[in-house]
Amino acid sequence: MKTYTDYIVVNTKKEKEILNITSQVEDIVAKSGVKDGMALVSAMHITASIFVNDEEPGIKQDLLEWAEKVAPDLPDYRHHQTGETNGDAHLKSLLFNHEIIVPITEARLDFGPWQQIFYGEWDGRRNKRIIVKVLGV
Amino acid sequence: MKTYTDYIVVNTKKEKEILNITSQVEDIVAKSGVKDGMALVSAMHITASIFVNDEEPGIKQDLLEWAEKVAPDLPDYRHHQTGETNGDAHLKSLLFNHEIIVPITEARLDFGPWQQIFYGEWDGRRNKRIIVKVLGV
Amino acid sequence: MKTYTDYIVVNTKKEKEILNITSQVEDIVAKSGVKDGMALVSAMHITASIFVNDEEPGIKQDLLEWAEKVAPDLPDYRHHQTGETNGDAHLKSLLFNHEIIVPITEARLDFGPWQQIFYGEWDGRRNKRIIVKVLGV
Repeated sequence: MKTYTDYIVVNTKKEKEILNITSQVEDIVAKSGVKDGMALVSAMHITASIFVNDEEPGIKQDLLEWAEKVAPDLPDYRHHQTGETNGDAHLKSLLFNHEIIVPITEARLDFGPWQQIFYGEWDGRRNKRIIVKVLGV
Repeated sequence: MKTYTDYIVVNTKKEKEILNITSQVEDIVAKSGVKDGMALVSAMHITASIFVNDEEPGIKQDLLEWAEKVAPDLPDYRHHQTGETNGDAHLKSLLFNHEIIVPITEARLDFGPWQQIFYGEWDGRRNKRIIVKVLGV
Repeated sequence: MKTYTDYIVVNTKKEKEILNITSQVEDIVAKSGVKDGMALVSAMHITASIFVNDEEPGIKQDLLEWAEKVAPDLPDYRHHQTGETNGDAHLKSLLFNHEIIVPITEARLDFGPWQQIFYGEWDGRRNKRIIVKVLGV
């Protein structure tokens, strides 16, 4: 059994942004030498998400607007009594999910034609880390 | 270490439908020969979900209605400028989660009494695939 | 390859409550002897969640209020025609996610500085179980 771990660092220009990280995950899977197994792709922060969706500019904008509708950026979260201002980012992290597991078959991501891996940044403009851990044979 | 991969194909009669796929996953776990490990059950589409809930007709209807309330089927998603009409299906896929990992102990799903595995179809009436990948000993 | 499985039993005082279970998961990871791998932490019930967020009293209260806003405790879920009264708990379980996978590197949870593991109880005041299954080397 093989294991392989690597980290992706992102730093978004906008406070809230959706980044396609598929090719970075694919590179790590290739380096791992794992031909059959799984990769965990997980945000190392509680104000970010990892999820699978579609690389299409319209839907990415729809996702950002939906995040705002279901988990709005309001001033009065109790969390803000600590001096923080990112209460909504904690909720958005849960709405879009914190991590994914992706399958690896014949040394490649075993995905359908439209599946792509995204990082959802909900409190950006600073370095954030993503862990990718590959397990398999 | 063993790995085993299989695919389930579904084709729902309705556009939006919740299917219990527990017995199909159990069959694949049995074929895998894995006695202790995990199975990834993941939709290979971005307009579908995999989740754990209860096999009870009322709650399945409640889930469909809740999906519609939180991620409504509206005409004006930006994604629709591409000619697509399934923007809501992308949101519902995230709300209900895209994939699950289930535990295997003594060659069986290590579940509580009410846990069942469901496929949530949000844009159906065509062939869709689910990957089941088993890892363990 | 090693596998190790253990169960955490919780019994909350309140019907809805968020419990930090990080140290219990850490203890199981230590017992497993796994130095590099993953741990599945999964609710064995369909009225509970496992998720990663922040150990801060304000945000935990915000999370409970958000759960109520997006998946409200209403009397008229169809599920209640069975005699049950916990329809909202099934929805909240999905909103906050049913299980997580956490990475293990150098025999420890490979987490960012603020990540903590939480159990979300949506229908408590009785014994509930959480499975922790560790896979790795």
